[in-house]
Amino acid sequence: MHEFELIKKYFSKLSKSNKSSLNLNDDVFFDKNKNLVISIDTYNEGSHFIDFKKPDLVIKKIIRSSISDLICKGVSPKFYFISGSGNKKTFSKTNLSKISKSLLQEQKKYGIFLCGGDTTFSNKLSFSITSIGYSKNIIYRNKAKLNDDIYVTGNLGDSFIGLQILKKRFKVKNKIGDYFIKKYFHPEIQINLTKQILNFANTSIDISDGLIADLEKMINRQNLSYLLNESDIPISKNLLKFIKVKKLQKSNVVSNGDDYQVLFTASTTKSRIILNTSKNLGIKITKIGKINSGTKKSYIIDQKGKQIVVNDKGYTHHF
Amino acid sequence: MHEFELIKKYFSKLSKSNKSSLNLNDDVFFDKNKNLVISIDTYNEGSHFIDFKKPDLVIKKIIRSSISDLICKGVSPKFYFISGSGNKKTFSKTNLSKISKSLLQEQKKYGIFLCGGDTTFSNKLSFSITSIGYSKNIIYRNKAKLNDDIYVTGNLGDSFIGLQILKKRFKVKNKIGDYFIKKYFHPEIQINLTKQILNFANTSIDISDGLIADLEKMINRQNLSYLLNESDIPISKNLLKFIKVKKLQKSNVVSNGDDYQVLFTASTTKSRIILNTSKNLGIKITKIGKINSGTKKSYIIDQKGKQIVVNDKGYTHHF
Repeated sequence: MHEFELIKKYFSKLSKSNKSSLNLNDDVFFDKNKNLVISIDTYNEGSHFIDFKKPDLVIKKIIRSSISDLICKGVSPKFYFISGSGNKKTFSKTNLSKISKSLLQEQKKYGIFLCGGDTTFSNKLSFSITSIGYSKNIIYRNKAKLNDDIYVTGNLGDSFIGLQILKKRFKVKNKIGDYFIKKYFHPEIQINLTKQILNFANTSIDISDGLIADLEKMINRQNLSYLLNESDIPISKNLLKFIKVKKLQKSNVVSNGDDYQVLFTASTTKSRIILNTSKNLGIKITKIGKINSGTKKSYIIDQKGKQIVVNDKGYTHHF
Repeated sequence: MHEFELIKKYFSKLSKSNKSSLNLNDDVFFDKNKNLVISIDTYNEGSHFIDFKKPDLVIKKIIRSSISDLICKGVSPKFYFISGSGNKKTFSKTNLSKISKSLLQEQKKYGIFLCGGDTTFSNKLSFSITSIGYSKNIIYRNKAKLNDDIYVTGNLGDSFIGLQILKKRFKVKNKIGDYFIKKYFHPEIQINLTKQILNFANTSIDISDGLIADLEKMINRQNLSYLLNESDIPISKNLLKFIKVKKLQKSNVVSNGDDYQVLFTASTTKSRIILNTSKNLGIKITKIGKINSGTKKSYIIDQKGKQIVVNDKGYTHHF
């Protein structure tokens, strides 16, 4: 069963009388009366991260993935909890010391504090991260407006290639391999955009499952469609080269997620303020498409206006 | 490594400059500025619950175990999140429907609302529950005072016997077996005590790991000791009979945890208000001992004043 159906069928009724849950159709919980915003995510070895050979890198990745849910909604992360299920090997002194060091670095980088958590014994390794922030407002899902422009921050696809290299699906030179692997472990989340994005975005999401999957999720309860221009989707110079050499389709490569960039829509009247914010903060923000009426189909077009079929629409959670 | 040492050595420094974490030495996070209280716990199949043959009962047990952490501190639980890691069998339609029904019953019983969570794929089943409440004050750990009386609510030990029967360690008649098993799956947490306990308790904890283990945890940073009277420890009539027939030691039986009763200390001047609260709410509250100076040793005495050695001090988390 698809995760959305599962939630709708069995759990929506449990949150009906409670607005803060956002009908369980958002990545966060928001109690408007208390200005409280919470995001909770579980990360399992083998699915969310390959293994725990590099605990320092894995921990950084999951912390960033968690606070990214708040950042994309215009909420500064403040506190986090970490719950780890693992065994003696996972929580060896060497690993604990690496985990602790990584967490301290992330705390300094993002201004967050550890607040608690727990450790339980399990032979299957998993972490659950809870991130908390306080905010009067947040940017919700499903608030796109007809004719909105669609924007994305940073570059997409590098992280996916890094993961493929780690899985030995591509043979590459060390230097270029290191570049992509670093992008996989250390997503450059847009913490500096947090406060500014409330000034212009109508709706937003962070790209964890993939550009198309998350775009569709962002507007899944609206009678709207999208038009994306493949050539406008921002990628790094290294990825541009890589795609050419390996003869990959750009739309597929950028649709695999793990990017943790911010995808949002904004009215065309906001294009100047978005341009200025981008310049002032030194954050790449690229217009990649448009929100259309729900009577039209959603599609991606190439430079010649030809419709592109995306084979790999990104990760969806099934049971 | 013992869980406390682990936290102290590797994680305390990460929360140093942040008061809300309560130095990671409490069961909850409390942000006094925002009146926010949070408890997070992970429950793994095989250690926190035997198996998932009765999903409805397991879910009730872990929900109660989670909100019990707030209740014992005088905080009404308001919201909860549930994250489940499991496979297709765990999250079959039949099981989901049972889980959903159980959650709805617990919501009505305790006035709480589902706020979110996530489901991830894993062959090892585990749940993580986050419970949230708002409160101006909480009862902290390590705030016992010299000469305080030690109290406990309800009865202890029934749940442990239920677990042993489920594990087939005892052979019993169906009727009596059902009694103990029900106590294991449906701990009677003291939701009605929540607001009142702030009026008299100096320090408190819920008994999850065991009477002795949790008592020692409750005052672990204080230079204090305790004296418990074994004969005063409240148990059910059924347990009294069971202990006699099976020739068990009472102190051992009541020290195995899973009771989710409230253990607290209070000044002797509060004895009347505690008695009245107990009568008015119809909640059993029993004085079981005293807080002594740290120069004395902690011990339990039997009716003749003889010191008792407790073999099984309850569950401690090791790696």
